[in-house]
Amino acid sequence: MTPDFERMWRDLAPVGRSGADGGYFRQPFGAAERECLAWFVEQAQARGLVVERDRFGNHVAWWRPDGADGPAVLTGSHLDSVLDGGAYDGPLGVVSALAGLDVLRDRGVTPARPVGVGVFLEEEGSRFGLACLGSRLATGATSWATARELEDRDGVRLEDAMDGAAVGETDLLAAVGCFVELHVEQGRDLVDRGVPVGAASGIWPHGRYRFDFTGQANHAGTTRMEDRRDPMLTYAMTALAANKQARLSGQRATFGRLEVRPNGTNAVPSSVTAWLDARADSSEHLASLVRGIERQAGDRADRDGTRLDVTSESVSHAVRFDEDLTRRVVGTSGMPVIPTGAGHDAGVLATAGIPTAMLFVRNPTGVSHSPAEHADTADCLAGVQALADSLQRLVA
Amino acid sequence: MTPDFERMWRDLAPVGRSGADGGYFRQPFGAAERECLAWFVEQAQARGLVVERDRFGNHVAWWRPDGADGPAVLTGSHLDSVLDGGAYDGPLGVVSALAGLDVLRDRGVTPARPVGVGVFLEEEGSRFGLACLGSRLATGATSWATARELEDRDGVRLEDAMDGAAVGETDLLAAVGCFVELHVEQGRDLVDRGVPVGAASGIWPHGRYRFDFTGQANHAGTTRMEDRRDPMLTYAMTALAANKQARLSGQRATFGRLEVRPNGTNAVPSSVTAWLDARADSSEHLASLVRGIERQAGDRADRDGTRLDVTSESVSHAVRFDEDLTRRVVGTSGMPVIPTGAGHDAGVLATAGIPTAMLFVRNPTGVSHSPAEHADTADCLAGVQALADSLQRLVA
Repeated sequence: MTPDFERMWRDLAPVGRSGADGGYFRQPFGAAERECLAWFVEQAQARGLVVERDRFGNHVAWWRPDGADGPAVLTGSHLDSVLDGGAYDGPLGVVSALAGLDVLRDRGVTPARPVGVGVFLEEEGSRFGLACLGSRLATGATSWATARELEDRDGVRLEDAMDGAAVGETDLLAAVGCFVELHVEQGRDLVDRGVPVGAASGIWPHGRYRFDFTGQANHAGTTRMEDRRDPMLTYAMTALAANKQARLSGQRATFGRLEVRPNGTNAVPSSVTAWLDARADSSEHLASLVRGIERQAGDRADRDGTRLDVTSESVSHAVRFDEDLTRRVVGTSGMPVIPTGAGHDAGVLATAGIPTAMLFVRNPTGVSHSPAEHADTADCLAGVQALADSLQRLVA
Repeated sequence: MTPDFERMWRDLAPVGRSGADGGYFRQPFGAAERECLAWFVEQAQARGLVVERDRFGNHVAWWRPDGADGPAVLTGSHLDSVLDGGAYDGPLGVVSALAGLDVLRDRGVTPARPVGVGVFLEEEGSRFGLACLGSRLATGATSWATARELEDRDGVRLEDAMDGAAVGETDLLAAVGCFVELHVEQGRDLVDRGVPVGAASGIWPHGRYRFDFTGQANHAGTTRMEDRRDPMLTYAMTALAANKQARLSGQRATFGRLEVRPNGTNAVPSSVTAWLDARADSSEHLASLVRGIERQAGDRADRDGTRLDVTSESVSHAVRFDEDLTRRVVGTSGMPVIPTGAGHDAGVLATAGIPTAMLFVRNPTGVSHSPAEHADTADCLAGVQALADSLQRLVA
């Protein structure tokens, strides 16, 4: 029924896989991500789809049969990965979208509305620090004037990194009436329920906060412990406190990224910068979680003689996906409707007022953002069928 | 009396000063360190000294007046810095040595023994991870076969980094009968005593240990706290435990260098590598300190579901400087003789069996390995006089 899914998956699998454990590095405007996009354009053209790009490089491949009219149905996802990530987060939604169109054609369906397969850039924020940057730009949630000045870890400005990749000012979403994104599940909900595919009810609110701990550089051998102002200690206590608070309250708090200066073995650091990723089941709980962590960090900074500055780099509010659309996506399948802690382009489009729904494909270990991320082929194919069924209802 | 000290200091001050707070980056085989060495050769030649280099690039500038004979007296220090370090750690000893020779000449002293001013490379181990690498190579404590394979953080092999800088196989220390190194103090002992210059009794034992914490990469938003195997938590507890154990026992333990993989904001890390710098007043106390930290880290790893591997990268035993030589260096000055927690090339030469002594110049804040490192000019000039007095006694 969908032989193309497996062929497409095999084609894409080697691109950007370079970690020691087979992890993916598909950062925006790098060679691997370019190759993924070129592959996408090739696949779209092979299907007679018309590819449009916007100034940032987001893509939509349109299927507009004669007579198709009215608000378009958009599906798709992203092709970029976190640093040392897995194969499924993003690409599964793009490949399933192309395969879903193939299913519709095999079924002899002629859409009464235009159907688009979208690829949004820098969904992970792994290079420029702002997640869902492509969909934020496409919806106007982030302005181009802001985005162009973003810098990566090496100080390269986004606009310079693009190196002329921009091709115009197309508003890719102008004609879009609804969006359905398929994604690998990043937790264990579907595993626990024993079902291969589910729909999403909404996304937890989510924030990224930069914690700058400043102390005083000093000699690790000669400076008495009591004479130090060591920001590493303040950070270490903060990481433990964040974990404990999130654990006790059933929320999520992670310090996964760190910059230590000067980062020398025999030097007490002058500063430690750490990024907190926090998520909670409501905006109130999120604010309270971050406040609690900040308070404990500040108390410890006082004891350590260090300074703490906290900057909120991005906060995404809770997202409720469109209930009517979700009902039509679920149809009579009986699939469960579950919440998620992960941000998605679907969340950005929903926030921008576009009726949006999501489909999740079961992840047997729940592991994601890791080379160990996985989904069984049978489940992926079930996802393609569920997406095709949804699209068929939506384009009728 | 020593106008040249201040001129030399001014010449050297701008080289490699590039940190936000005026910190120095003089890593081996980089442009700044090359410039420092070129400056040294120029100064030596202007004084009619004969410069020799060994295969690693250690330098000695020799003053061999007619009739000078017998075992040579070596002084000097190093010109490289830690990352974002201060101006005094190393260069003060080299500049004071050159100025000390000027003082001897002004006094009309003609040495009866050869006098050398030495510059040892990579004393800080800030690039290739092994402290005192130059003096270790010069004394044979480390073999060239081992050293050439060392890699910096970017994976550049030492031999490739040298890029043909090696010039021969000269044994720079063959003729050396004793070594006196002047250094800025890196603690507050002389400040507390209210004296500008002191001598060193010995160096605490010192070790560097790599702690590899391995967990499982995962999605920061969707992975429940209780499903994680997060190596950052194991590390954070270890950093706090190390500090507490060192504080309670009057020893030193520092985690100042860290590598986090993949180091992404929205990813639970797959691994954290941290380097422990530990020093204690005896080898037994050092071993017991490190054992205690390792035990606490291992216990926490069990709780976190992570793995810990500890590798001892280098351990330097306690150094006792030569008592007879130190007596001659101190002379009738009445200067105090104090221990230090910092490693020095002098320690490596002492361990190799060369009678060795050290002079320390007061550091008003005790801060070192930091842009804030300082010594008053009056104290520096007192150091030059003390070194000249020592050399005069030793070359008679």
